[in-house]
Amino acid sequence: MPRLLTLTTDFGLRDAYVAAMKGTILSIAPDVRLIDISHEITPHDVMEAAFVLSQAVPYFPVDTIHLVVVDPGVGTRRRPVALRHGNHWFVGPDNGLFSLLLNDELPAELVLLDRPAFWRVPAPSETFHGRDVFAPVAAHLAAGHALNAIGTPLEALRSLHWALPIDDDQGIRGWIVHIDHFGNCITNIPRPVFERLRDERPLKCYVGNAILEGIHTTYGTVEKGEPLLLFGSSNFLEIAVHAGNASDLLDIRKGTPINVVFLDEPKHVPNLS
Amino acid sequence: MPRLLTLTTDFGLRDAYVAAMKGTILSIAPDVRLIDISHEITPHDVMEAAFVLSQAVPYFPVDTIHLVVVDPGVGTRRRPVALRHGNHWFVGPDNGLFSLLLNDELPAELVLLDRPAFWRVPAPSETFHGRDVFAPVAAHLAAGHALNAIGTPLEALRSLHWALPIDDDQGIRGWIVHIDHFGNCITNIPRPVFERLRDERPLKCYVGNAILEGIHTTYGTVEKGEPLLLFGSSNFLEIAVHAGNASDLLDIRKGTPINVVFLDEPKHVPNLS
Amino acid sequence: MPRLLTLTTDFGLRDAYVAAMKGTILSIAPDVRLIDISHEITPHDVMEAAFVLSQAVPYFPVDTIHLVVVDPGVGTRRRPVALRHGNHWFVGPDNGLFSLLLNDELPAELVLLDRPAFWRVPAPSETFHGRDVFAPVAAHLAAGHALNAIGTPLEALRSLHWALPIDDDQGIRGWIVHIDHFGNCITNIPRPVFERLRDERPLKCYVGNAILEGIHTTYGTVEKGEPLLLFGSSNFLEIAVHAGNASDLLDIRKGTPINVVFLDEPKHVPNLS
Repeated sequence: MPRLLTLTTDFGLRDAYVAAMKGTILSIAPDVRLIDISHEITPHDVMEAAFVLSQAVPYFPVDTIHLVVVDPGVGTRRRPVALRHGNHWFVGPDNGLFSLLLNDELPAELVLLDRPAFWRVPAPSETFHGRDVFAPVAAHLAAGHALNAIGTPLEALRSLHWALPIDDDQGIRGWIVHIDHFGNCITNIPRPVFERLRDERPLKCYVGNAILEGIHTTYGTVEKGEPLLLFGSSNFLEIAVHAGNASDLLDIRKGTPINVVFLDEPKHVPNLS
Repeated sequence: MPRLLTLTTDFGLRDAYVAAMKGTILSIAPDVRLIDISHEITPHDVMEAAFVLSQAVPYFPVDTIHLVVVDPGVGTRRRPVALRHGNHWFVGPDNGLFSLLLNDELPAELVLLDRPAFWRVPAPSETFHGRDVFAPVAAHLAAGHALNAIGTPLEALRSLHWALPIDDDQGIRGWIVHIDHFGNCITNIPRPVFERLRDERPLKCYVGNAILEGIHTTYGTVEKGEPLLLFGSSNFLEIAVHAGNASDLLDIRKGTPINVVFLDEPKHVPNLS
Repeated sequence: MPRLLTLTTDFGLRDAYVAAMKGTILSIAPDVRLIDISHEITPHDVMEAAFVLSQAVPYFPVDTIHLVVVDPGVGTRRRPVALRHGNHWFVGPDNGLFSLLLNDELPAELVLLDRPAFWRVPAPSETFHGRDVFAPVAAHLAAGHALNAIGTPLEALRSLHWALPIDDDQGIRGWIVHIDHFGNCITNIPRPVFERLRDERPLKCYVGNAILEGIHTTYGTVEKGEPLLLFGSSNFLEIAVHAGNASDLLDIRKGTPINVVFLDEPKHVPNLS
């Protein structure tokens, strides 16, 4: 079975950049299967790329190779790397793109891409390592080369600061990390953290120009045009509007804070006073 | 030969949603060939999805499977279905998506997707049946499962009200059902209906801020920047501007009415008075 | 190994147009591999399509077929053609799309597409030759038909006026031919021409609302938000902003002039006076 190779970039779909990478890959590994994750990452937004990647990778079969090029530091001293995590392979710049996926674990294998024999040309463009370094390396992985053949082992990746929500007995403060195509607003509050802290109490949530109460299971549980809180398919707390755009309607942007306030005392915490 | 599987959604190309469906499909049916029809359907616009789908499906080979997820009612009681029409297979929510294609016919086969063994997980996300129900079912069809294996037979689909144009001896009243990427404005007036009613008479057409005369065969028959009426590749009456954007220039939107007035008496209708 | 077939159009990704072409191709050549170059060419912009195509084609393997449909003259007397240049095949309208790639050379082979047996239907839509003429012809090439089987030999293509920059001892005047997805502004000044004329002299560059000095190798050599001149991956002189959008920041659009002024006398030119 041919290897799967996914692509995630901030290159957009108007220019020839993505196609130049695909042509380069297919020149090296003619039977690899290419699947686009996204080329519409906000330009230079490493955090957004890390989030989108973390939402797609778990659904791909083992042995998939993921090429990720959101690379504002191209041509500077940021390191080009390739790594294995579980049964997936990753190629891209060492700028934090892989932090969310790794979830503070070390990669099972990690190499610095320092061997021009695996690049498209020995002297790559200083502005387009996607085409000249990362794509050919990903293709050589797909063609069966081992990680330790294409680069030199490294100890650790740079990590990206993915700020965690702040909490106390009274509530949780987080913020919006992603606005999706529908205008759904995804927070940095994961479901397990939320449920442990909430402890079955009623709540009020303050975000943008809205005050929301209760957690819903899906959009259609409120009237069309009404906002709601739910855990979306990402398993992070999300603000949505049934058949509408929450970001526009509630004036919520990436970075907007969210305050969840629990209305009673916690039930299961022993009272120590 | 591997099966073809097309995808039509309103998910956009920025997020991981489409990729999560593709990864899910390829985990079940590794050699299926994936072709995107569109992921840029206006969010929640079932009518637009039905139109785009009806314009693409006739050009695909027999045995193609079409996965269609424009699903504003996800998580509510709208039914998940799969069906066969002619030699094509379809999977998606029962909300009218397939009405235009079926053209008031009943599907040759139709099943309710009520068997969790064919889903990604027994308890699917309540907000993303595309990934957890529809994609895996489409993949199982591609892998050779029969419709009556993956679901329970149903009698009929919900139908979508696709309003027909209104006509009398003097003319036709319709409206704009789709604005395409070029700004061409496509009406709900099909060529055969139009030609029968027109009966070779001269006409005037009132739409947006324009009054148009005559039917052209292609854009280049008028000067650049000039508007025209023609039957486009969809075989519906269309308003276009040569090398320009008719929607912007003539202030025409989805839903804008169009009035076609025939200037003489019909020639071939016997005068009964 | 199945043939590669790339697609470049101005159709956008919202409508069914691209999918109708792909379905048509796969009905004729079921095992061809389809790769999108771009469907986001500005509508009717033959020059932009020629540029994007020229930036992608060199990275594809030999024997790739390139289907290119940016066709404002569809249905008029512009000629439908197919051609070979080096080891690549091309199919599209004869409106200048292939000029930049050919770089004033004649195609190795060139035919007029005048044989309805290789079209989808004998009487193609007058508005969608992409689906009815070009896509099926490209598919028949992929299926192994020779150029001289599918059309009648032609002598020459129409050429597109790709204006060259103007230069004298004191400097170079060019203009912006493309704004990419990042807002990088690409000029019509090729690196070899620039370096021969510059002759190692210092320079000032006037473009939009900026005055720039010096040529950089990559974005990260200036502070974030600062503009710079460099030769990008296209090998044309380019104006960029580190981690920003040069088009927006410097008010540069397609067609904006650029003046490069050399500050000293040339060093290597013999003084003939």
